[in-house]
Amino acid sequence: MSDPNKGRPVSESLAETTHLVLPNDTNTLGNLMGGQLLKWLDIACAISAHRHSKRVVVTVAVNHVSFDRPIKLGDFVTIRSQVSRAFSTSMEVWADVWVEDHVSGRKIRCNNAIYTFVAVDNAGSPIEVPEVVPSNEEEQRRYDGALRRRQLRLILAGKMRPEEATELRALFPK
Amino acid sequence: MSDPNKGRPVSESLAETTHLVLPNDTNTLGNLMGGQLLKWLDIACAISAHRHSKRVVVTVAVNHVSFDRPIKLGDFVTIRSQVSRAFSTSMEVWADVWVEDHVSGRKIRCNNAIYTFVAVDNAGSPIEVPEVVPSNEEEQRRYDGALRRRQLRLILAGKMRPEEATELRALFPK
Amino acid sequence: MSDPNKGRPVSESLAETTHLVLPNDTNTLGNLMGGQLLKWLDIACAISAHRHSKRVVVTVAVNHVSFDRPIKLGDFVTIRSQVSRAFSTSMEVWADVWVEDHVSGRKIRCNNAIYTFVAVDNAGSPIEVPEVVPSNEEEQRRYDGALRRRQLRLILAGKMRPEEATELRALFPK
Amino acid sequence: MSDPNKGRPVSESLAETTHLVLPNDTNTLGNLMGGQLLKWLDIACAISAHRHSKRVVVTVAVNHVSFDRPIKLGDFVTIRSQVSRAFSTSMEVWADVWVEDHVSGRKIRCNNAIYTFVAVDNAGSPIEVPEVVPSNEEEQRRYDGALRRRQLRLILAGKMRPEEATELRALFPK
Amino acid sequence: MSDPNKGRPVSESLAETTHLVLPNDTNTLGNLMGGQLLKWLDIACAISAHRHSKRVVVTVAVNHVSFDRPIKLGDFVTIRSQVSRAFSTSMEVWADVWVEDHVSGRKIRCNNAIYTFVAVDNAGSPIEVPEVVPSNEEEQRRYDGALRRRQLRLILAGKMRPEEATELRALFPK
Amino acid sequence: MSDPNKGRPVSESLAETTHLVLPNDTNTLGNLMGGQLLKWLDIACAISAHRHSKRVVVTVAVNHVSFDRPIKLGDFVTIRSQVSRAFSTSMEVWADVWVEDHVSGRKIRCNNAIYTFVAVDNAGSPIEVPEVVPSNEEEQRRYDGALRRRQLRLILAGKMRPEEATELRALFPK
Repeated sequence: MSDPNKGRPVSESLAETTHLVLPNDTNTLGNLMGGQLLKWLDIACAISAHRHSKRVVVTVAVNHVSFDRPIKLGDFVTIRSQVSRAFSTSMEVWADVWVEDHVSGRKIRCNNAIYTFVAVDNAGSPIEVPEVVPSNEEEQRRYDGALRRRQLRLILAGKMRPEEATELRALFPK
Repeated sequence: MSDPNKGRPVSESLAETTHLVLPNDTNTLGNLMGGQLLKWLDIACAISAHRHSKRVVVTVAVNHVSFDRPIKLGDFVTIRSQVSRAFSTSMEVWADVWVEDHVSGRKIRCNNAIYTFVAVDNAGSPIEVPEVVPSNEEEQRRYDGALRRRQLRLILAGKMRPEEATELRALFPK
Repeated sequence: MSDPNKGRPVSESLAETTHLVLPNDTNTLGNLMGGQLLKWLDIACAISAHRHSKRVVVTVAVNHVSFDRPIKLGDFVTIRSQVSRAFSTSMEVWADVWVEDHVSGRKIRCNNAIYTFVAVDNAGSPIEVPEVVPSNEEEQRRYDGALRRRQLRLILAGKMRPEEATELRALFPK
Repeated sequence: MSDPNKGRPVSESLAETTHLVLPNDTNTLGNLMGGQLLKWLDIACAISAHRHSKRVVVTVAVNHVSFDRPIKLGDFVTIRSQVSRAFSTSMEVWADVWVEDHVSGRKIRCNNAIYTFVAVDNAGSPIEVPEVVPSNEEEQRRYDGALRRRQLRLILAGKMRPEEATELRALFPK
Repeated sequence: MSDPNKGRPVSESLAETTHLVLPNDTNTLGNLMGGQLLKWLDIACAISAHRHSKRVVVTVAVNHVSFDRPIKLGDFVTIRSQVSRAFSTSMEVWADVWVEDHVSGRKIRCNNAIYTFVAVDNAGSPIEVPEVVPSNEEEQRRYDGALRRRQLRLILAGKMRPEEATELRALFPK
Repeated sequence: MSDPNKGRPVSESLAETTHLVLPNDTNTLGNLMGGQLLKWLDIACAISAHRHSKRVVVTVAVNHVSFDRPIKLGDFVTIRSQVSRAFSTSMEVWADVWVEDHVSGRKIRCNNAIYTFVAVDNAGSPIEVPEVVPSNEEEQRRYDGALRRRQLRLILAGKMRPEEATELRALFPK
């Protein structure tokens, strides 16, 4: 469906950032606060959306973030994000959050997040972005699911009625 | 369905916070960065979840946030949040974001957000929270929708299969 | 003395903000640092002064702040502020600071503060603000005391001689 | 009145700090926000109170701060503070705020502030501090005025009745 | 010289972090402040030193940082760091700073930095770290130069006399 | 070598700043993080470079910083910096870091740092700065060493070949 002549590979938008969890980032339990991670994720995903579109980008939605394991004070947190699909002026961006084990150095996945960005011109008006070209199975799966998530997001924001969400309906066969 | 004897009214968890948008909160266009608002929303929703449960609370998911209008440097941003429904140990929290017009003082709604929190004991283990008792039509509508959003969240986090999401399927009649 | 036709009720300038005390806000004893609270109070009072005047406002003085009880790391701090009286271009703003008991949810008053703001135009020059109309006994009492506090402030800033402070002298009958 | 054998000279508590005004410290007019300066003043005065008492100190009141001239983005702000008088467990601290002219290097006084601190032990209970010994005319004048300001502060905090404020009454002869 | 059986390859300590330059990170000219970049470099290098040693690490020196091109507000800054050589308990870490061209996406090198870290146990005492194994020409060149830079650092810190710095002297043949 | 008619004494660029170590400034061991101190040093040295040149100044290099003793949470850190020598458009700035003993008040030197700044005009182009006039033995020693450190810095930045560094070679007689 994507045209390789106009599109860009997923890998071109890959961004990696690493943070050290400092005292002010933590909650009463000594774990990384959700709100701080959401802010780091927003910047990481913005870098990916920028690398894909080469444009100023602004957040239009958080589709989904789950916090599966607590992250501790002093942990090194690595966020890897990439654009999974583009829709005219908007881009869906996936981010995975990893924490390194202090002794083995092994990275453990703690969270995953899906944000949506729009590319804008200097006046702040949305502008077209290139398509995304998935090049492996996981990239293709995320690409395919993006349309359903987009319909979900529009329903949740009150901008689409459920009966119009044809892709999404296919998930729930009678 | 909720038992008023054990439950708490939605109004008991109402939290209001107001922020002034400072230079460091803004992006290249001079508007409030999405990530900063996500952090403010997380703290506002945590206050609501705490007021409902009287417990330490931790973020377990962002279900949905939409950014509908840009918010400018120097704007006063008011966030109003309340718990819409409780599920055993978790609470869905809604937040609305308002900006005041500088001359008329009229508040304009710019964003809305849905987060999920869990109440924990001192060891960080989840504990039961009281039920929520909706007391007007809007509270009831949010209460009713919470079960569908919960199923969506579990599907997106890979913790539920679509065919198990009976409430959600009802949205898509054959 | 205030003209209800031109004035605005105290309630119109009411601002409420809630903060979570994070590690970086605390001192060596693990309590909220005075300086951080002074900064939060300044922003809260600025919101009230803005809501009363619908203008850009700048701090011209802190008249008085007392710190009566320590506030702990992890506490939710609620600040409620309102304009108590206007003097041509300046406004006296009162703020009360509350902390919630974690179990009962009851709010305990910890501090109170009085700031003075001036409304300015875009060039930074002071401009007239509407009068304040007190509508209950406490608002009237704060309104009445504002003139004495203004004289005190001007004496302390070296801008008025004690013998000119007629209102203030009335406090100390021979 | 002060005993030089037990007291410490004012100069021993002198603290000087210099800050660069960064974008996040400014308001909509591009000037240093009052709240940020209040926070810097609090830390500067705490250093002076610590140098006088050699103890952990906590802010108990802001007696008075006036903001006389706007301070600009990029300005270097110098705060000089010293303890003006001690009362058993509390200390009055004066701070002056200076800004350097970028070309001449001449320092211009922009603000002055009076804070009150208390020295505490590790449990947070107030403990005795040494007396202050003024050694020139200005130090003596601030020392003498401190008792009147203390009475004012206690009246404003509702902890003293005006008729008990004998020192203060002397300001307003019949 | 390094023993591959005990050593770790340079690549194992590679760390990449990306930052967005926000208003508060900039100086009067609207460029990234040196001090902010030094802080980001310190955290990036600490991550590399931690990945090499799997230990808590503390900064013991900055050997050299040069700032060659101004970095602008809104730029995405990528730091790539790796351990170049280990000396018993200390590690030399190199970091390169890149900025992406907004249109072409091409990265331009703006700075380079050399820090020294020490691995410590929980009591803060230095402990042995594995050797570093260079595996290409550039890694070998940095490895070879590290001994000279170490001697320089010790001379500058007053901990070695020039005549003892045999490696360094070799740079300046008679 | 310096001309007193055109030069400025070292003392004219003296800057003193004092910081309180807050939780967010610390690392996993509860000590001040190297990166935070580097940021404070950068601002302190910039003030000195500005006081010497009366110009906007930008960091061009960190020549050397050593961290000799850990600094604890709650410590008061005093930085004293001054320009040691000027070279046409650049200035070498020395900073010493002191921590006060909480009981005796005695200051202990913990670190020392050497930065290089350049004075620039409004377009960011380097401009001439006055010479520095040392007036005691320590100032003279730092002045004399500055040329060697400058050669070192240029070699490390790849901008000078070792055989050109005549001053530096003198350190290593055959």
